[in-house]
Amino acid sequence: MEKIIVAGAGLVGSLQALLLAKKGHKVDVYERRSDIRSNEFVGGRSINLALSTRGWKALEIAGIADEIRDISIPMYGRKIHAVNGDISFQSYGKDEEAIYSVSRGELNRQLLLKAASYPNVGFYFDERCVDVDINTNEAAFQNSITGEVSIVKAKQIYATDGAFSAVRGRLQRLDRFDFSQTYMTHGYKELIIPANADGTHKIDKNALHIWPRGQFMLIALANLDGSFTVTLFFPFEGPTSFESLNTNDKIRDFFKETFPDALPLMPTLIEDYHENPTSSLCIIRCNPWNYQDKILLMGDAAHAIVPFYGQGMNAGFEDCSEWWRLVEEYGQDWSTVFAEFTRIRKPNGDAIADLALKNYIEMRDLVGDEKFLLRKKIEKRIYEKHPHKWVPLYSMVTFSHTPYADALVIGKKQEAIMDRVMELENIAQIWDSEEVEQQIIAQL
Amino acid sequence: MEKIIVAGAGLVGSLQALLLAKKGHKVDVYERRSDIRSNEFVGGRSINLALSTRGWKALEIAGIADEIRDISIPMYGRKIHAVNGDISFQSYGKDEEAIYSVSRGELNRQLLLKAASYPNVGFYFDERCVDVDINTNEAAFQNSITGEVSIVKAKQIYATDGAFSAVRGRLQRLDRFDFSQTYMTHGYKELIIPANADGTHKIDKNALHIWPRGQFMLIALANLDGSFTVTLFFPFEGPTSFESLNTNDKIRDFFKETFPDALPLMPTLIEDYHENPTSSLCIIRCNPWNYQDKILLMGDAAHAIVPFYGQGMNAGFEDCSEWWRLVEEYGQDWSTVFAEFTRIRKPNGDAIADLALKNYIEMRDLVGDEKFLLRKKIEKRIYEKHPHKWVPLYSMVTFSHTPYADALVIGKKQEAIMDRVMELENIAQIWDSEEVEQQIIAQL
Repeated sequence: MEKIIVAGAGLVGSLQALLLAKKGHKVDVYERRSDIRSNEFVGGRSINLALSTRGWKALEIAGIADEIRDISIPMYGRKIHAVNGDISFQSYGKDEEAIYSVSRGELNRQLLLKAASYPNVGFYFDERCVDVDINTNEAAFQNSITGEVSIVKAKQIYATDGAFSAVRGRLQRLDRFDFSQTYMTHGYKELIIPANADGTHKIDKNALHIWPRGQFMLIALANLDGSFTVTLFFPFEGPTSFESLNTNDKIRDFFKETFPDALPLMPTLIEDYHENPTSSLCIIRCNPWNYQDKILLMGDAAHAIVPFYGQGMNAGFEDCSEWWRLVEEYGQDWSTVFAEFTRIRKPNGDAIADLALKNYIEMRDLVGDEKFLLRKKIEKRIYEKHPHKWVPLYSMVTFSHTPYADALVIGKKQEAIMDRVMELENIAQIWDSEEVEQQIIAQL
Repeated sequence: MEKIIVAGAGLVGSLQALLLAKKGHKVDVYERRSDIRSNEFVGGRSINLALSTRGWKALEIAGIADEIRDISIPMYGRKIHAVNGDISFQSYGKDEEAIYSVSRGELNRQLLLKAASYPNVGFYFDERCVDVDINTNEAAFQNSITGEVSIVKAKQIYATDGAFSAVRGRLQRLDRFDFSQTYMTHGYKELIIPANADGTHKIDKNALHIWPRGQFMLIALANLDGSFTVTLFFPFEGPTSFESLNTNDKIRDFFKETFPDALPLMPTLIEDYHENPTSSLCIIRCNPWNYQDKILLMGDAAHAIVPFYGQGMNAGFEDCSEWWRLVEEYGQDWSTVFAEFTRIRKPNGDAIADLALKNYIEMRDLVGDEKFLLRKKIEKRIYEKHPHKWVPLYSMVTFSHTPYADALVIGKKQEAIMDRVMELENIAQIWDSEEVEQQIIAQL
């Protein structure tokens, strides 16, 4: 049986290896970094992610959803922290709908362990992809410890090696391969709210905390060990920026003034601020996502997006479940499976990239805005009364399997309707009236 | 004196080497291809280019404009070939304003010869850039004949190595470096109209010939030897495409039906069609165009565009004249010169990329359209009567030094005004009336 290579054993790579193994393929996984399986579970002080409906579907197919649920914390809505200390809660969906805070490291570890439980999967760590020969479908990997280069021939290569994918780097040299990398003028820095002495959380763990401040924001997601991973999204340059906060006093004063209720929760703020890197945010787009029936780009290698919709990982996992669906439909007709993958997934990748970018504005600015909240309230009411006619955009993206591209189109239509509704006189008074409801429904 | 490297000895590279030499710098030029200086002048059967005002300015500064004028053929306007054989003429500007057909190979050869006449310029051919160390500013070049790699340390590197620039390839790996390559769904193929037996041209040499056909077009530019370089711009795939013209009969039938007056002029059509490659069209954008005061991207390495405004080379040459202007202003303050170059040139690169894309629609479709021609006639009249208030977009781009970005903005404003004017009742009758004139002027 001919081998299949998975290049990159991050979240999407280890999940895809698992699915390939389940389908009975002989899979070899090559990963640039070292093996994290033996790492002790440190409670996930690393980057937190928000798992939602699309992600869970792929985990269900892979048969690992229950294990992951055990290490996830449901967040039922946003807790908005105003400058004056007021805290308000906005639920994400209805009833039990939640997104799930999970540690990237621990999630990755569990996916690797599960994949490795299949006898037909091999793992090679500390192996950096240095070249791909697209004519022979041979990939070259260099071991970062021994320096040795191995050439591996494969029937297929799944490129799950992230935003700066080496495999995609090779495809970028092909005629008519579109590619773009676009950086934001804002970056981010991770900080910490530690646990209480007894291991409990200092603030509500079942919400995503946001300190929206117009041009920037602070957010916090709970970890299992009682701590919170806090992220400051902030301009690189300008009057209020990473560049301008260049002394300890300025950092402390800025937090005191801007995030007064967060500051006391962060005793190691100054150390964390200096120790943790300032990272950039990059959007990657490319086309096509396949090379014949030989190479398939998945996850960030195909579509890295900004984190503001909590959909980066979920979109990558949906790549895996959609690949699964195509294989169920077309079997071993790989030309069709790969071509269909590009045809179906590419517009969805573009759509979630746009949606995520737009959501930064919503998170950092609008969630604290009266008019915006009224809008959400009206939408929620219509959703409750007409659940088959109006599903709010956030719910479509987060709690449904509606293709992102369709959600984007429907969302724009909804936005136009709501723009008109918000112009009604006395809308603040009549928002829950029969009249407003009928007007919205009539426009659908 | 520390060395300066120019990577790439194409049109922009050889011109930039010339300007650096003029300023007294010690310059070493490395070029991947072999030396074309000894090539016999073959009359320029290669790609033709249209030199216009921006290009001439840089050639004037370099002191080589007269020599180039001798090998250029002025084109005063477009000759439009309709399917029924009708030919109409649309002048590009007023009076003596023209764009100039010139052979890429011969222009390059003359620029190289002129640059080489400076004792402070060295040339190294068959040297492919394989790496750049941005910390030490060392570039590695591999000789394609001997295989030997030389490492060259430089004070500055001017990257003029084209759309697929190796130097830019290194910058693309930097954090916060934006980059995109976007291919068009249309490609092109070069064909030939040979000279008459006596060396004269078969059709008017002082015009750019266009066979506009809606979704595609054929164009022809005169060569000095009496021939024309003909280019078919055409979809890669689809019902009428390079893919679908897959037999000699289909090619001949298609030309007979679509370009009936061109077919008899092209006796080697079938051979040329098979022998010449089908080439793709790629748009390159990136940001920033400098790395500190060490590396500067110029020409296609910074901003490759589609050829439909005849501005690719002119924009690259304007990079050189603008660099010259900045050096005149800031002297050896290279940090400022390089930063200003990015600040000023980048928006202009983006603007001409957009304009060129838009002009494909104009060339292949609108130039044969009645309404469009009336529009142009009205604009021309206003231009003649109010030359300081209204300069048509084509003239701003082609015959002025107005920054491309400004031309784009002014052009959009003009377009909006003309949209309104064209909606006037009986505009075909009153187009040259006092009323229409006043209405346009009032809106400026």
